[in-house]
Amino acid sequence: MFENLPDKITLIEVGPRDGFQFEKKIIPTDMKIEIISGLAEAGLRRIQVVSFVHPKIVPQMADAEEVLARLHKKEELNHVIFSGLVLNTKGAERAHLAGLRHIEVSISASDTHSRKNAGMSLEQAIDQGKEMISLAQTYHMRIRAGIQCAFGCVYEGKIPEERILQMAQVLISSGIDTLSIADTTGMANPLSITKLMEKLLPRTNGIPVVLHLHDTRGLGLANVMTGMMCGITHFDTALAGMGGCPFVTGAAGNIATEDTAYLMKSMNIETGIDLSKVANCSMQLEKFFKKQFPGKICRLPSED
Amino acid sequence: MFENLPDKITLIEVGPRDGFQFEKKIIPTDMKIEIISGLAEAGLRRIQVVSFVHPKIVPQMADAEEVLARLHKKEELNHVIFSGLVLNTKGAERAHLAGLRHIEVSISASDTHSRKNAGMSLEQAIDQGKEMISLAQTYHMRIRAGIQCAFGCVYEGKIPEERILQMAQVLISSGIDTLSIADTTGMANPLSITKLMEKLLPRTNGIPVVLHLHDTRGLGLANVMTGMMCGITHFDTALAGMGGCPFVTGAAGNIATEDTAYLMKSMNIETGIDLSKVANCSMQLEKFFKKQFPGKICRLPSED
Repeated sequence: MFENLPDKITLIEVGPRDGFQFEKKIIPTDMKIEIISGLAEAGLRRIQVVSFVHPKIVPQMADAEEVLARLHKKEELNHVIFSGLVLNTKGAERAHLAGLRHIEVSISASDTHSRKNAGMSLEQAIDQGKEMISLAQTYHMRIRAGIQCAFGCVYEGKIPEERILQMAQVLISSGIDTLSIADTTGMANPLSITKLMEKLLPRTNGIPVVLHLHDTRGLGLANVMTGMMCGITHFDTALAGMGGCPFVTGAAGNIATEDTAYLMKSMNIETGIDLSKVANCSMQLEKFFKKQFPGKICRLPSED
Repeated sequence: MFENLPDKITLIEVGPRDGFQFEKKIIPTDMKIEIISGLAEAGLRRIQVVSFVHPKIVPQMADAEEVLARLHKKEELNHVIFSGLVLNTKGAERAHLAGLRHIEVSISASDTHSRKNAGMSLEQAIDQGKEMISLAQTYHMRIRAGIQCAFGCVYEGKIPEERILQMAQVLISSGIDTLSIADTTGMANPLSITKLMEKLLPRTNGIPVVLHLHDTRGLGLANVMTGMMCGITHFDTALAGMGGCPFVTGAAGNIATEDTAYLMKSMNIETGIDLSKVANCSMQLEKFFKKQFPGKICRLPSED
């Protein structure tokens, strides 16, 4: 049944961006550096650490430049690929000035969500996306493009597969290095993932596709398993399952790094991740925020 | 990939027993009747509602007889199959006197767990199990036998498959109607489920096998999906994901009824369950216990 699963899976840590910016309480820069270093020490080789957004709108990310400057100074982190999210060309400029080599641009597949969240139509968002990609290319950055709400939107419901495939086509032909398909609202399920991946994967010109899954409806790891069975080898995760859904109070967030790594370990799939070291970072954040995050493995006695 | 999945899956609600007895605070009998009736109204046709244990040890279940008497009086619940857990022959006698037609006997596959939890060796527990089964047969009860810790034990680690297969053999040949394989500690994973089911299912003489899964390590629904792919069509679930693990503070409990039903619905598999009605029961319990249970779907706006 699981004969064709890959031997290795890459988990891309997005907690320091997607998770940290979801919490109201702002994490001091010192603590961010400590957690990010802890994640690197735990074996995560790709970490999304900042978002270049207006500090008045997202004060949690106001120290983006400082975070990067301090991370870049740490020689022991030289082998880690840090990335940042950019939402407009100004953000791409800031990323470049901060010495970032890997950026993610992100576009919602839902016109309504795009208008409400980014203040522009889907068409405008795609145009702006292409502009960011083109700018980043002049800086020789590695570019990952993400399609948000790929499996559904709270405003528009199910998004037609054809729209995702078309957007993917536009992004891929603009020369991105990686495509990310995001289940922003946690509406993906094993059938919808299978259907989309069967159509998408043969059309990517060989660039890697990352699945960015949320556990809003509890299907996170069932969806990961499905993704793997479809041939996906890259998943975004957030330590402790941080993050959330602005539309559902108390909702679970991203799939948890340590829980996903535990699933892989239990299936003899290599991730290179030390579960208990990730769990230590998670527990440190639970102490700081004085609350329990949805991740499960961080609560268990070490199994390594 | 999912072509061979069944069209229908039966969820067996165990929240009123496994969930209610895990919480320290005792639910008034009136409220138990209300919740159980609500679950029946939501489409659950099999509900484990009581446990016949000493009221000093498990005061949450002290009203077992009263719960059953009141449920049996409700004509609108005539089509629902109520069951109770019995741990010794005294319990089986009580179940009989309470007019219960379906009982579950349960034996741990871990000798250490059995000694610590039930005060007897594995061998003694099997002998006592056979005694209970034999007694229940004289009362013409339907008997389900469960093997606890089938995928691992916190004391003994992994339990050899051979032991589970042997226990299953003994139970099946003693004439039980259903076999339940319980992942009491949440240590099952897709590989271990596949391996055990591939060996067990051809040897059951056609009696149904129920998977009783816990979400302690977050793999609950990935394991459900695996179970379905192995041919399992019956799963125990608890509303809101109630229950827990006595060995891990803050651990998740049973897989949540509404989340499991949502997974099925998303895969076009029929369960006959109205998600929002189960969610209403779950939210009522969250109010009563003043805490958030692990279930996800109960937090979402109705999708029906």
